[in-house]
Amino acid sequence: MSRELTAEDLPDIARGAALLGTGGGGDPYLGRLLVEQEYRQGRRVQLLDPSEIADDALVIPSAGMGAPTVRVEKLPRGNEPSLALRTLEEHLGRTADATMPIECGGSNSMVPLLVGAQLGLPVIDADGMGRAFPELQMQTFGVYGVPGSPLAFSGAHDERGVIDTGADNRRLERLARGVTVQMGGTASIALFPMSGKDVRRTAVPGTITLALRIGRCLRESRDRHADPFEALVALFKETMYEHARPVFRGRIVDVERRTTGGFARGQALIQAFGGDSVLSLVFQNEHLVASVDGRVRVVVPDLITVLDTETAEPITTEALRYGQRVTVFAISAPPIMRTPEALAVFGPRQFGLDVDFTPVEEIE
Amino acid sequence: MSRELTAEDLPDIARGAALLGTGGGGDPYLGRLLVEQEYRQGRRVQLLDPSEIADDALVIPSAGMGAPTVRVEKLPRGNEPSLALRTLEEHLGRTADATMPIECGGSNSMVPLLVGAQLGLPVIDADGMGRAFPELQMQTFGVYGVPGSPLAFSGAHDERGVIDTGADNRRLERLARGVTVQMGGTASIALFPMSGKDVRRTAVPGTITLALRIGRCLRESRDRHADPFEALVALFKETMYEHARPVFRGRIVDVERRTTGGFARGQALIQAFGGDSVLSLVFQNEHLVASVDGRVRVVVPDLITVLDTETAEPITTEALRYGQRVTVFAISAPPIMRTPEALAVFGPRQFGLDVDFTPVEEIE
Repeated sequence: MSRELTAEDLPDIARGAALLGTGGGGDPYLGRLLVEQEYRQGRRVQLLDPSEIADDALVIPSAGMGAPTVRVEKLPRGNEPSLALRTLEEHLGRTADATMPIECGGSNSMVPLLVGAQLGLPVIDADGMGRAFPELQMQTFGVYGVPGSPLAFSGAHDERGVIDTGADNRRLERLARGVTVQMGGTASIALFPMSGKDVRRTAVPGTITLALRIGRCLRESRDRHADPFEALVALFKETMYEHARPVFRGRIVDVERRTTGGFARGQALIQAFGGDSVLSLVFQNEHLVASVDGRVRVVVPDLITVLDTETAEPITTEALRYGQRVTVFAISAPPIMRTPEALAVFGPRQFGLDVDFTPVEEIE
Repeated sequence: MSRELTAEDLPDIARGAALLGTGGGGDPYLGRLLVEQEYRQGRRVQLLDPSEIADDALVIPSAGMGAPTVRVEKLPRGNEPSLALRTLEEHLGRTADATMPIECGGSNSMVPLLVGAQLGLPVIDADGMGRAFPELQMQTFGVYGVPGSPLAFSGAHDERGVIDTGADNRRLERLARGVTVQMGGTASIALFPMSGKDVRRTAVPGTITLALRIGRCLRESRDRHADPFEALVALFKETMYEHARPVFRGRIVDVERRTTGGFARGQALIQAFGGDSVLSLVFQNEHLVASVDGRVRVVVPDLITVLDTETAEPITTEALRYGQRVTVFAISAPPIMRTPEALAVFGPRQFGLDVDFTPVEEIE
């Protein structure tokens, strides 16, 4: 199943990753341009299925850290993520056999592709979030016992370093966030170094391919003048994400956002077309909960995406504007993300929401 | 000149270091207790003159980082500074031949003694500040070309890490400060790894012995009922610090302080005994400038200390209280700290003061 990504795959993956970003994770556009630049110089990305990596191989995931609003404004130089991975290799005294995303949603979908192309490392088709999340410890890796430490970071001025908090991934998040804020709000990181065996045991599999399929589905529906929402529902039905459906259509009537503590927080209100119903969306980088007239309809870790009602183009929280005509589209998270252990790390209460998790397919 | 510090030396060094702390650097009392505990368990500190260390020896200085107000409130476990040094050794792939202070003033005078006793490493009788300063880059080491990087840090929960900003010591300060704040306001650090040759070239020599002599001088003056201020003036005349004198005596009539950005900032007003003259003190962890009736009398890097008028006991900025009867005592900084290169790193303008440096002995 190992295969080379083509240059044509990249915009599809970026669009699919934007949808899986559930409003956050940063716009993958800039990262896509950086990967395309590598392709123009003849470098390629080799995608590996988790089943293809040796049990004792060393896998080092790659990512960016920081508020997406800052990441959009600050142009990276492009070699920071590779420097972070090399820094972790030096620290471990061992070279990586592959990289992979920690987060298939948003701009972090592109970072491992960039690293893979630059360093000639295969990229494993899996991640630790199955979507986007605002904090480092919100990973299936950690849920199932893989520590995020040691983490390596790097920045645009060749500053770099390593942080080790043992098994405490929340503390790792806090310390890495402290450095990131001092680096101007954004850092490149390499973390959760793990064996091929642990990838198979703890990762959400197939998520780069999923992003690719979502992007291709949206592009082809548009080309065929077909209903993209129907096409998406059919696509997800064939995957671990299974239950997907539009839950609300309307016009944005209010958006409020602020960047605090390195996060983009806020909420948006959407009024139903030809009705009084109002859907409220609360986000911390990503959409956390969607309630209609005060009643919860979808809640994290299930995926809440806001799509343009005409084109089904995903809209990030920072791009939400008064007057936009949008469709709120819900997708059930894969089973590995809905266990009690998983909900204890990225369930609603981990975001300060006073709500229990209910699967979207069980809410009417 | 290598010699073992006795248990009786420790309180003298602590008192002398409090004076050299120029109001900041944290109270050395807690660190002294930790070193005394090592002494009770039979461990000792071997003091080395800079002339005794080999050219190619590896010296790793040890310190604590954080606002002194926080450091006073948070009891350390005691092994954090040794963990930081070991972390830097692991990173460098080389063991240290000695440790030393980066800051002979305040609590950082005690940290290398603790590390030296715990790890059986000699402590070099020299430092990089010749007093206390609020920021990491304010070091003669850096002034004369030794990078602070790589820096290792550690905390009370066994969290640790390494930060490398190349030759940029200001950026190092910023990133390490970001981690320290997230660690609850205090961290142990090991930094400025350097050769014995670089110690001789860039350090302020003899400053642990100086602290010891100051402490002993204050104790003996008290025992002999002699004037401690006269004794101090005579002591400094024999050292590189040379010019020392009381510049003002009076009663504290106002103190204002706040902890912002990891620093204890504020100012105090002192009214002359039997007069209208008012001395104002501005501090950022340490005293930066003392002005009498609006005219600058002493300014950083020259040392400004506030001593109890009866006992000459040093008073830290956090211990300044309304009504205290104090003597403001000024000491000229050693020549190595007054060069144009040094003033560009820790002169008055580096603290945001719109004042040029004038040596205290030239101000009337």
